[in-house]
Amino acid sequence: MAAGSNRQILLIETPKEKLAASNFKLDIGEIPSPKEGEALLKVKLISLDAANRAWMQGATYRSAVEAGTIMTGGAIAEVVESKSPDLKAGDIVFGDTGWQEYAALPARQLQKMERMEPLSHLLSVYGIAGLTAYHGLLDVGRPKAGDTVVVSAAAGSVGSIVGQIAKLKGCTVIGIAGGDEKCALLTKELGFDHAINYKKEAVGKALRAAAPKGVDVYFDNVGGDILEALLFNMNNYGRIACCGAVSQYDGAAPAHGPRGIPGLIVVKRLTMQGFILTDFNDKRAEALADLHSWVNAGKIKVREDILSGIENTPQALIGLLAGENVGKRMVRLD
Amino acid sequence: MAAGSNRQILLIETPKEKLAASNFKLDIGEIPSPKEGEALLKVKLISLDAANRAWMQGATYRSAVEAGTIMTGGAIAEVVESKSPDLKAGDIVFGDTGWQEYAALPARQLQKMERMEPLSHLLSVYGIAGLTAYHGLLDVGRPKAGDTVVVSAAAGSVGSIVGQIAKLKGCTVIGIAGGDEKCALLTKELGFDHAINYKKEAVGKALRAAAPKGVDVYFDNVGGDILEALLFNMNNYGRIACCGAVSQYDGAAPAHGPRGIPGLIVVKRLTMQGFILTDFNDKRAEALADLHSWVNAGKIKVREDILSGIENTPQALIGLLAGENVGKRMVRLD
Repeated sequence: MAAGSNRQILLIETPKEKLAASNFKLDIGEIPSPKEGEALLKVKLISLDAANRAWMQGATYRSAVEAGTIMTGGAIAEVVESKSPDLKAGDIVFGDTGWQEYAALPARQLQKMERMEPLSHLLSVYGIAGLTAYHGLLDVGRPKAGDTVVVSAAAGSVGSIVGQIAKLKGCTVIGIAGGDEKCALLTKELGFDHAINYKKEAVGKALRAAAPKGVDVYFDNVGGDILEALLFNMNNYGRIACCGAVSQYDGAAPAHGPRGIPGLIVVKRLTMQGFILTDFNDKRAEALADLHSWVNAGKIKVREDILSGIENTPQALIGLLAGENVGKRMVRLD
Repeated sequence: MAAGSNRQILLIETPKEKLAASNFKLDIGEIPSPKEGEALLKVKLISLDAANRAWMQGATYRSAVEAGTIMTGGAIAEVVESKSPDLKAGDIVFGDTGWQEYAALPARQLQKMERMEPLSHLLSVYGIAGLTAYHGLLDVGRPKAGDTVVVSAAAGSVGSIVGQIAKLKGCTVIGIAGGDEKCALLTKELGFDHAINYKKEAVGKALRAAAPKGVDVYFDNVGGDILEALLFNMNNYGRIACCGAVSQYDGAAPAHGPRGIPGLIVVKRLTMQGFILTDFNDKRAEALADLHSWVNAGKIKVREDILSGIENTPQALIGLLAGENVGKRMVRLD
């Protein structure tokens, strides 16, 4: 396999401020030939994540995305041809293929996945989003039954699952999201106890009303002013699971942090703990088993937001950063 | 016992900005008579702590200090007369006597202490300072041998002990302090590996030089810009023990927090954890036994900074907030 075109999205310049379509370019490359140990992949579903934008700001737990290269990103893909004993044509894998139709990658950088219907669940509830929600809430946030749990970006891929798991564990759950429709989804379909529309309500005041006994666990996807409002409403010995800071990604250099750090951390004996999913690789099987059982029992409802066509990937990310998605956003390639 | 004068310091107004001598007034009250269950105390050593200033900002783990009342503060005192079966004349206690020569307090609010020479050690290494250093470092910071540990306000009552305990545990220790004399004390007398004079050096740059392998544990006494510099120099899975934020106490309302929160907390999977000493009451005996054995073996050198005369207590606190003390500051009363 070699001949044929491979449409791909290049990041042509690193955004200085807000990410724009003009930062990207659709290009046509060749379908690569796999080398020894590699597999040639046909990309099926590209994952869109707020972290994609964070990677443009500089090196994090991975190296920075460089201007002039194919935009980096995870995807579910099918093996077309394999030069590794570990994979064969037809296998489904997750890997960092980048935003393109075909990629050749070393088998050791690919994670073999179970083929399932719908395949999209491999990027949502059984993918990084679901596992991040699971470990971030249970291992970092450590809620006890009866606790009040708050999650921001609550209608997003991770937040929507965090809240549902917290309900399963007997907590009172408050979601913070941008928009009345998202808030209605949280309370009417996903079982959240309260939802706060941060675009319309003062978050601190709304929290005092929704959580009169204070907040025990805050799952933070956004940072910034909402984190600040939470700091003032946390209970003593509260836990803040620091998952992301989407409010800080799409702009200039990061601003000063929330007020009350570290003063409130001391006074309330809070724990703020950052994590990324790979920290919990050893517990992956157990987490997936729980998630499967909860989805199969109808206790977790999976929300997905699937767009089509590689040419729409830049706009899909720009829209995600603006909060237009509900549930896990991905782009399906034909 | 009743007749006689009781000199006392009133906080006459809550400072809006920097604490000043004019916020206080020396007054003369009466020596109180203990009620049933109370003991009359003669104050011997008043403890000066940065937290005294924080208490003026509002309620924390204790209620705010109110203008027009005797300034709050802990002290070592001797029982003069007791109406409680738990205490007798001559006993030495620690309690919140406030800044005055005599106080009558319920016995259950007093902690009976061993009489020792020098008595001042009950406020330094065997008091709140030493125990805060011990538990904050070992239980919150959790250093392993070989780790790089940084402590700020390193020549202060807590910091000077934190660094010495970290050395005992096999760590590389860097102290941050304001002034060349303090820095010389740290490295020449207290065994720190490096000292950074934050008034003269850019802390971030100095940290990169002194800790080329990064920082594993940061014991934070100061907050603000120094905390920010540390965030950028922490290693993955680093721990920040949040003990205090003296940079934030003596001024207007707290400023925005350090840059990099929560972004760097996520990326580096840091843990920031606040604590106060009473969280570790159940381990007190063990901690004291360790501290005694280390002091007796000459492994911890105790630095104290003892002033005299109740009329000097306001200036003692103002000076402490300006960083003029080395080791534990207290005021001895005749």
